[in-house]
Amino acid sequence: MPSTRRAASTLMDENCPILVSRSLGSLDLPDIWPTNCTTHDFQAVYKCFNKQAAAIIDGKSIAEEITSRIACEVRRMKESTGKVPGLAVIIVGQRWDSQTYVRNKIKACEEAGIKSLMTELAGNCKEDEVVNALSRFNKDPTIHGILVQLPLPQHLDEERILNELSLEKDVDGFHPLNMGNLAMRGREPLFIPCTPKGCIELLIRSGVEIMGKKAVVIGRSNIVGLPTSLLLQRYHATVSIVHAFTKNPEQITCEADIVVTAAGVPNLVRGNWLKPGAIVIDVGTNPIEDSSCEHGYRLIGDVCFEEAVRVVSAITPVPGGVGPMTIAMLLSNTLDSAKRAYDFT
Amino acid sequence: MPSTRRAASTLMDENCPILVSRSLGSLDLPDIWPTNCTTHDFQAVYKCFNKQAAAIIDGKSIAEEITSRIACEVRRMKESTGKVPGLAVIIVGQRWDSQTYVRNKIKACEEAGIKSLMTELAGNCKEDEVVNALSRFNKDPTIHGILVQLPLPQHLDEERILNELSLEKDVDGFHPLNMGNLAMRGREPLFIPCTPKGCIELLIRSGVEIMGKKAVVIGRSNIVGLPTSLLLQRYHATVSIVHAFTKNPEQITCEADIVVTAAGVPNLVRGNWLKPGAIVIDVGTNPIEDSSCEHGYRLIGDVCFEEAVRVVSAITPVPGGVGPMTIAMLLSNTLDSAKRAYDFT
Repeated sequence: MPSTRRAASTLMDENCPILVSRSLGSLDLPDIWPTNCTTHDFQAVYKCFNKQAAAIIDGKSIAEEITSRIACEVRRMKESTGKVPGLAVIIVGQRWDSQTYVRNKIKACEEAGIKSLMTELAGNCKEDEVVNALSRFNKDPTIHGILVQLPLPQHLDEERILNELSLEKDVDGFHPLNMGNLAMRGREPLFIPCTPKGCIELLIRSGVEIMGKKAVVIGRSNIVGLPTSLLLQRYHATVSIVHAFTKNPEQITCEADIVVTAAGVPNLVRGNWLKPGAIVIDVGTNPIEDSSCEHGYRLIGDVCFEEAVRVVSAITPVPGGVGPMTIAMLLSNTLDSAKRAYDFT
Repeated sequence: MPSTRRAASTLMDENCPILVSRSLGSLDLPDIWPTNCTTHDFQAVYKCFNKQAAAIIDGKSIAEEITSRIACEVRRMKESTGKVPGLAVIIVGQRWDSQTYVRNKIKACEEAGIKSLMTELAGNCKEDEVVNALSRFNKDPTIHGILVQLPLPQHLDEERILNELSLEKDVDGFHPLNMGNLAMRGREPLFIPCTPKGCIELLIRSGVEIMGKKAVVIGRSNIVGLPTSLLLQRYHATVSIVHAFTKNPEQITCEADIVVTAAGVPNLVRGNWLKPGAIVIDVGTNPIEDSSCEHGYRLIGDVCFEEAVRVVSAITPVPGGVGPMTIAMLLSNTLDSAKRAYDFT
């Protein structure tokens, strides 16, 4: 550190670009998390523990309650207008996880009385086939929500395809205009992305006051981490976003009153990452091999549940936490969209 | 904390709304910061100090260098195409600070060889007059950047007016679509908002590696705090956003390697808020009365400069730090826009 005042202005070479800052696209790096905790290690270390204190936030039953309320609204709409909300799903390829998610969404629509249509395209289909399917649903007045199940196969331009989606039917809320309106105070997005909206519902219904709380969001994907951090800020939490380039993520995380994890890394968050009494919302849904299970795998979260449950005051389980809430919020967004379309209140 | 597992699902009354989360608009609260440090107190406490160690980041000279490089590019464009970039400014009312900012912007355009047009409207003008002025500039092919000097008088609908601004000429980068593209990885906004872009330039030119650093942004306005936090994230900093509802903001701030303040509160950030060796970018530009100055006031930042300079390794002064950079970035965005319009590289 110099002992006297000095100027940090740098005289740059004439051949340098005018600005030294880079295009944002060139900054995009894959978030590769260290996998510092295998399930096996964890079981060895913690099998001797049996104390458990945290409340389990029962996303499944909260989602069921919301879905049944939505079903009532759909019936009321049908009686009054003769119409029901409609959701269209486009799925490309045979990813087992995408197939499962879509099946669950269609099933939930049925339960709520929401009409659903599905277009399945081959994994090697052309971009125009996806765009054409989208255009048909955009024009269909009986469809109020459209979702393109992500991720798409690598050869398809996700940005171009999503840009075709009618803003009024973007029930996933992934359009950048929607994201901008989510970020900016004084603005209102047409749709709040489903998973972040579900997280907030779980927090509020668990009696958590968000305003003024320290919140850490782990992961910064466009579909979960980013909109969750923006939404928590709109609720006046003090938000820190932890990602794979964060040094000592456990130090930041263990100061948080609210932790939302969406890293996609099984057991990333250990018990010692968490502040005693914190609230944990685990968005991670990671399949790990388990020959004792029906399909040869089971789902676990980003949080070492058995460790966390001894430290925090409330936590969502995986499965049965955020997952069902995401689907309930999709139904809620679709209902809202239909209400707007039919001017039904 | 309960000692046994319990479900946090809440059975809600039938008459409650389906979702307990609120509309985002209803969440918007004014950020009222405590004014816990008057300049007078501060001078009394610190007049005995004289040690100073930090490098002063000379925004004025960096901005001059950038402006002169932009002027070269403008000359090259003129020689090659016969055309120059054009910036239009709309100012409503007689706010002294807005008048000063606009005057400085017009002057900078002249220095860089950028054509500038200004429309001045009365403080009590109708919304349509602003929109009409905007529409004229939207259609004018010699204009590549338009800015509406904010804040607008209260009777005008800022959102409606800014929505009229052609995206291709939104050199301030305040359109929500632009903000969404700034926030989302894999996307590229047409324009990065000027002040955040200037902050990043100052950091990089001061030799600061942003990736992996802990950054705290103080303030979350749509025009500075929010886009700065989004931009720092795109550069892979670990970002925390501190605002008026943050409890113990000094605790979070004093862990940061990079602090960007945009709260608009003079001397909010004291020396004990800062980590030794941190880099401080002070966006605050707060007029305080000072009868010894020519106009009866002088500008100070959000940071107690005389305290901070003894703690941190580098800091921007106010004035002469971020202010000139904001204007240089406006010229840079206008040049980029003209290059796009004329397909000039």
